[in-house]
Amino acid sequence: LSEERLLAWLRELADPRHRWIGDDAALLAATGPLAVTVDHQVSGVHFVPDLDPAVAGARLVAVNLSDLAAVGARPVYAFLALAAPPEQDLKPFCRGVVRACRRAGLQLAGGDLSRGDRLSASLTVIGRRVARGRWLRRAGARPGDELWLGGTIGESALGRALLEAGARPRGGSLAAPRELAAELRRTRLGAAARRAVRRHLEPRPQLELGAWLARGARTAAIDLSDGFALDLDRLRRASGVGVEVETDRLPLAAGHRRLAALLGRDPWELALAGGEDYVLLFTRPPAARRPPAALGALAVGRIVETPGMRLRAGGVLQPLAPAGWDHFSAPRPRRRT
Amino acid sequence: LSEERLLAWLRELADPRHRWIGDDAALLAATGPLAVTVDHQVSGVHFVPDLDPAVAGARLVAVNLSDLAAVGARPVYAFLALAAPPEQDLKPFCRGVVRACRRAGLQLAGGDLSRGDRLSASLTVIGRRVARGRWLRRAGARPGDELWLGGTIGESALGRALLEAGARPRGGSLAAPRELAAELRRTRLGAAARRAVRRHLEPRPQLELGAWLARGARTAAIDLSDGFALDLDRLRRASGVGVEVETDRLPLAAGHRRLAALLGRDPWELALAGGEDYVLLFTRPPAARRPPAALGALAVGRIVETPGMRLRAGGVLQPLAPAGWDHFSAPRPRRRT
Repeated sequence: LSEERLLAWLRELADPRHRWIGDDAALLAATGPLAVTVDHQVSGVHFVPDLDPAVAGARLVAVNLSDLAAVGARPVYAFLALAAPPEQDLKPFCRGVVRACRRAGLQLAGGDLSRGDRLSASLTVIGRRVARGRWLRRAGARPGDELWLGGTIGESALGRALLEAGARPRGGSLAAPRELAAELRRTRLGAAARRAVRRHLEPRPQLELGAWLARGARTAAIDLSDGFALDLDRLRRASGVGVEVETDRLPLAAGHRRLAALLGRDPWELALAGGEDYVLLFTRPPAARRPPAALGALAVGRIVETPGMRLRAGGVLQPLAPAGWDHFSAPRPRRRT
Repeated sequence: LSEERLLAWLRELADPRHRWIGDDAALLAATGPLAVTVDHQVSGVHFVPDLDPAVAGARLVAVNLSDLAAVGARPVYAFLALAAPPEQDLKPFCRGVVRACRRAGLQLAGGDLSRGDRLSASLTVIGRRVARGRWLRRAGARPGDELWLGGTIGESALGRALLEAGARPRGGSLAAPRELAAELRRTRLGAAARRAVRRHLEPRPQLELGAWLARGARTAAIDLSDGFALDLDRLRRASGVGVEVETDRLPLAAGHRRLAALLGRDPWELALAGGEDYVLLFTRPPAARRPPAALGALAVGRIVETPGMRLRAGGVLQPLAPAGWDHFSAPRPRRRT
């Protein structure tokens, strides 16, 4: 397939009603305050090379949408740049991208294809600030504010560990190498493992929560992509404050500790530094309205004046180091928690 | 350098006055009709691996700007996604990007870095429609319109051929393997060769011409990236018309034919299918005001009703095939002219 034919195919797939407005550039009719995110994923770095390409494509979209959720934007347009070996069939990947865009009400409005030795994809997403909302920023947390988390942490890293151990989604279930499969059966952790892999492969960006926050009380917000500790450190630095986290309140998925033990991993390292959680971390003034329960957020600590991060467990405070996942310098999470 | 430190460095470089507005996403205050372009370049595919990285970075910007010129947009914001081996120093490349952005009045407003086996870079540029202008489109040419070209064609492809033959820019001059250097001296084509390499490495997007067209009479426009014949075919198809080109009027750079002969290349193949010219190709109603001479555009043919493309030389018409450079399926221009 030539570039032109593949782009024509993609265009048709993305916009069967032919409302695409771009030629050399996509022409947007959008007005008002916009947010733009860009994420680049490389096969073998950001996802296992034998991953279903449709899943990889959808995941690229989700990762970008999580960035938009973190600023309180509603997704509007997406632009895809792909490099791949000429012999690779890019349609499954593109389908995954388009489907995920469609689910999010996002119009794929342009693209670029070129040759490369392996699949690498870059997605740019443009969002509009939610109506009657403010932008969410990392800065703005004040001492006394509560610290909230949009969902469980560490489950995605567990899913990644399972993929690295050879587990693969197969329809609705999970296929695993013989020994691992036997262990999962014996410990009755099969369902937890399936959920972890799914959480890793199909993150659900918290756009609703972001929109709710953008319309409400003063808040500082970030999405957890590189690990709870590292992203929390970014938020507290941007706000010029410190933070105390109640270890007992940190939400872990059902079966998290047992599954981590089965894989020989430290459950807290996974939770605090595993990364790719794609839930929002945010602060709220203590008197502010609590997020609706349906959005799944939980209070996990509070903002203090003293800089730095501390974990509180059983009345004892211990320092929390800003360790996490650095895509650029590390092939896997650093073990410094 | 970690991702975070490199991004901080880039941010500082791009915006020493700290007006960057993004955290997880860049927050744009722009309003009104916007154009977005995205281009992905891979080392060893789009540029020779030993090319000065600053030149490669600036070229990525220029290629995007040419797309904006073709729709009549003024560049506003750019977003860079880079993948590279962890040991590679990305600063020279980023410097090239930032300098080129600055020259064009373009604010680099966000980025993403990740690991990859070789340098690959994707740039997204957002532009605003020029004031009091219309969008330029490929469609809209009508029989009787004149066909115009914004500058010479084939010179960039000659420059690429010289790079492939081992020539390299060295300060203000051109270094070449012994035999080629001797030939260039003997034929006194050194200056033409230097200009060709420079034209290839430092394309000058025709933003002014695009803006002038957007404010003037009805026009159909495209920028020449994949070759005159291929891009002309795109324009005439989008407009549902045919075209006749006066071979004698096609502008070639000084020394083009002799330099092509020296390299054993067909001068017409280079001109018609060489690609990467980055000048505008556009149509104008016959009675419309001519572009100011300073913009360097020349009339080269006319739009006709009969579909297809024809070259006219000495009163004889011959068909012109839509051959050109397909980044995705071909490692080099196809030889089908």
